Amino acid sequence: MGLLKKEAVVMLSGGLDSATTLAYALDAGFDCYALSFFYGQKHRSELAAASRIAAAMGVKEHRVVEIGLGAFGGSALTDESLSVPMEPQKGIPITYVPARNTIFLSYALGWAEVLGVGDIFLGVNAVDYSGYPDCRPEYLAAFETMANLATKQGVEGPGFKIHAPLIDMSKAAIIELGVSLGVDYRQTVSCYMADELGRACGRCDSCRLRREGFAQAGIDDLTRYR
Amino acid sequence: MGLLKKEAVVMLSGGLDSATTLAYALDAGFDCYALSFFYGQKHRSELAAASRIAAAMGVKEHRVVEIGLGAFGGSALTDESLSVPMEPQKGIPITYVPARNTIFLSYALGWAEVLGVGDIFLGVNAVDYSGYPDCRPEYLAAFETMANLATKQGVEGPGFKIHAPLIDMSKAAIIELGVSLGVDYRQTVSCYMADELGRACGRCDSCRLRREGFAQAGIDDLTRYR
Repeated sequence: MGLLKKEAVVMLSGGLDSATTLAYALDAGFDCYALSFFYGQKHRSELAAASRIAAAMGVKEHRVVEIGLGAFGGSALTDESLSVPMEPQKGIPITYVPARNTIFLSYALGWAEVLGVGDIFLGVNAVDYSGYPDCRPEYLAAFETMANLATKQGVEGPGFKIHAPLIDMSKAAIIELGVSLGVDYRQTVSCYMADELGRACGRCDSCRLRREGFAQAGIDDLTRYR
Repeated sequence: MGLLKKEAVVMLSGGLDSATTLAYALDAGFDCYALSFFYGQKHRSELAAASRIAAAMGVKEHRVVEIGLGAFGGSALTDESLSVPMEPQKGIPITYVPARNTIFLSYALGWAEVLGVGDIFLGVNAVDYSGYPDCRPEYLAAFETMANLATKQGVEGPGFKIHAPLIDMSKAAIIELGVSLGVDYRQTVSCYMADELGRACGRCDSCRLRREGFAQAGIDDLTRYR
């Protein structure tokens, strides 16, 4: 197999981290294919944000895959019988969705192989989300190893590389990076319970992390709160 | 976390191998949750077979998850523009679906974690499907390693185990095992191009392997051909 084009599949949720990751990949010279998922999450306005961001940043293509993750339940993000907590949580939080990043990355892997693309970017972060096992570097390394055994492109070469450029960054550092790359954070939605217009609750764990990030970065938080 | 119940998630396509794997898991004393996928495969009658088998064998629950795999294309099993070949193929065949087993196993992992089940069975086989990278033992071992880093149940214990009891067996040996466990192979559909009644073409690679298996086992092949 010949050289790969400098193209990447970028997982784009519509939140602050994934928008910054897309800007990072574009700045690094990759033509980008953006991949979003509707998995029964309550904050569907994230997806509208993903579409706005994909269009504004000029990706080659943006696909939204609807997947049946909510059918299994087990997370406050997808299960109507569980509430999103308003306090910081210890250990693995109830907003953890079982195997979510593994399912997402598996789809990204499948699409990347069909496209003949070897680079996959995602915006996971081990600082703010230390309670999520599938946001840790050792998990991503194990996924990459598995991916290169799982696929034709992995076995026959040139393989796949998983990029998580934000993994060790604080929220403030991510925001500073994004602003320097021209990300318009008003387009992003981080809130676990955003309303249909994409306005944030201002109280959930994700809103709190985002607000603190802007404050620490000394950058005006233009997030639309309801 | 306490001891796990003796329960398993079993991937059930409706074909010969997965039906045998389900029989094997039941015989080993597991209560079983059967998981099937509709992923745009042309041979949808496989799913009807999966439902019949799940009911006949007495699983605790059978779920069919519809996933958007066909949207990416790239395989003769899902892409209308590619034909299923009638001759044995060299290397990685065109019926290979990019990242298919990885996506399937990721869903099985998510469901298993929600259920609190640690054992996942699948009917992959490295003998007949040596051309598929995601049917090899080293791939399954890498998936298991990744799964135990990806999940709450993996990190906090007691973890996950991936079982592929057929991996080193010939088709004839699989059929002998299944018959000894009472599997009714008339209920299974292996053909890549089965008609809506589940009748096989008798000519595709999958039909050829199946027919040779019955012949080698010296067992009457009651497969319904059209």
